[in-house]
Amino acid sequence: MRDLAADAELKFFSLNTGSVRAHGDFLTILEAARRHGISIVSPWREQVAAVGLDRAARALRDGGFTLSGYCRAGLFPTDAAHRDEVRDDNHRAVDEAATLAAPCLVVVVGGLPQFARPGSTPSKDIAGSRAEVRDGLAELLEYAAGVGVKLAIEPLHPMTAAERSCLNTLRQALDLCDALDPDRSKGLGLTVDVYHIWWDFEVHEQIRRIGRHRLHAFHISDWLAPTVDLLAGRGMMGDGVIEIAKLRAAVEAEGFVGACEVEVLSAEWAKRPIDEFLATAIARYRTVC
Amino acid sequence: MRDLAADAELKFFSLNTGSVRAHGDFLTILEAARRHGISIVSPWREQVAAVGLDRAARALRDGGFTLSGYCRAGLFPTDAAHRDEVRDDNHRAVDEAATLAAPCLVVVVGGLPQFARPGSTPSKDIAGSRAEVRDGLAELLEYAAGVGVKLAIEPLHPMTAAERSCLNTLRQALDLCDALDPDRSKGLGLTVDVYHIWWDFEVHEQIRRIGRHRLHAFHISDWLAPTVDLLAGRGMMGDGVIEIAKLRAAVEAEGFVGACEVEVLSAEWAKRPIDEFLATAIARYRTVC
Repeated sequence: MRDLAADAELKFFSLNTGSVRAHGDFLTILEAARRHGISIVSPWREQVAAVGLDRAARALRDGGFTLSGYCRAGLFPTDAAHRDEVRDDNHRAVDEAATLAAPCLVVVVGGLPQFARPGSTPSKDIAGSRAEVRDGLAELLEYAAGVGVKLAIEPLHPMTAAERSCLNTLRQALDLCDALDPDRSKGLGLTVDVYHIWWDFEVHEQIRRIGRHRLHAFHISDWLAPTVDLLAGRGMMGDGVIEIAKLRAAVEAEGFVGACEVEVLSAEWAKRPIDEFLATAIARYRTVC
Repeated sequence: MRDLAADAELKFFSLNTGSVRAHGDFLTILEAARRHGISIVSPWREQVAAVGLDRAARALRDGGFTLSGYCRAGLFPTDAAHRDEVRDDNHRAVDEAATLAAPCLVVVVGGLPQFARPGSTPSKDIAGSRAEVRDGLAELLEYAAGVGVKLAIEPLHPMTAAERSCLNTLRQALDLCDALDPDRSKGLGLTVDVYHIWWDFEVHEQIRRIGRHRLHAFHISDWLAPTVDLLAGRGMMGDGVIEIAKLRAAVEAEGFVGACEVEVLSAEWAKRPIDEFLATAIARYRTVC
């Protein structure tokens, strides 16, 4: 297991820029990251779009940044009237990931259609959503494999099942990988975010099942008790109940050598200065992760 | 599948009295239930304790009520200093269930010790909590089998894993039943609450695995989107996204003939009159469940 306390150069630390989206635009965030010695980031699409893809790519290059991922494609469930639009939007996400040289494109699959793609015909048929996810992902996978971008499907916590993701456990995600990319030729893999999967009694068994070649990204934050906000209620590493180091040990035992990507989506942290957030995240990375 | 619309006498409707705990004491709740033609209830321990066990038992008998369950025992994770106290408390819950002639005693297993039993030594070791649950449940099962009370372990939504229940899926609950009561001689079974398990991609497969003899109770409410309160944010049946009738069809296909127990724990409904709550619950029972 890597010794993060000794990682003076932050070689395995990544900032998911969604964590600080309230603190400024993408270029401002990169400047702040640089001040703290951070050289790996994982940008969100809307942040990149807001400053323009070319400008974002140039800023990343000029700043000497590399990426641990790009967030994100997916949100497949919709209705017939919107299906082409969703497919095209996802293809653009793949193209952007390629332009930015992201090692993977994170996929959040979506929940029921009225939430995944507002304006779609409402439904309670979650099995139907899962069938749409499977079909949409199969199509996107062909496109992404053609462009050379790896997809990293991310199981989200079950409390997001209706509104954000009907893919909720590692077992479910791996079953999908087995179905759509049985011989692993297309690079379909997972994002493991400790916030979403820590509660699962099977988490260690399923991490062993992922193995090395399907583990594309590893996200860290913490589960606060109590949690008062389902969307922006995550905690800084160490402030909650997740055994982060134990989960990191498990993925590293499978051979994972990628970055630990800090994704703390928090209304509380959004109120505090970006430098305080980054300094705290780095300190916790070295001490509790 | 039973036709609830035709259930004029509410033969399969049960009121979990926790749903209306803000509206008065246990005797007041029974009077209100009677006004609406409800004759099956599932009391909470603290409500019974507040009026006294003998008085509660007499009121139930005099009112012609039967029970669909008794809520609840469990909350096993603790520390050595509190273990005997927890065991004795759970034995008392079994004795009360026997006194009240409850067909089952619902078991909520608890999460981390500092939340399950405040005052216990804090821990993040959720696997340790699960080991304690297994040991505590094994002990309680012997006691309950001796008294003739069936235990109904209830998997709670994963968002409760730290604070209320480290038992979170039907698969996990059934694995525990297989381990502790392999030959089904001790009556260990499940409470299936649609609110807690609707999101699970395996829910129908696991309901088939439960079968008839391990299905002791069936709870209904709805998942609101958005959900803004993790503890008291449940919706009235029909106001959320759960396919309740589909889940009821699944348990009835396995032979379940028990009551549909309304457990709507809601800060919003707590503000409205008990008669409005009961009338609405009955109407929804007949139309959307």
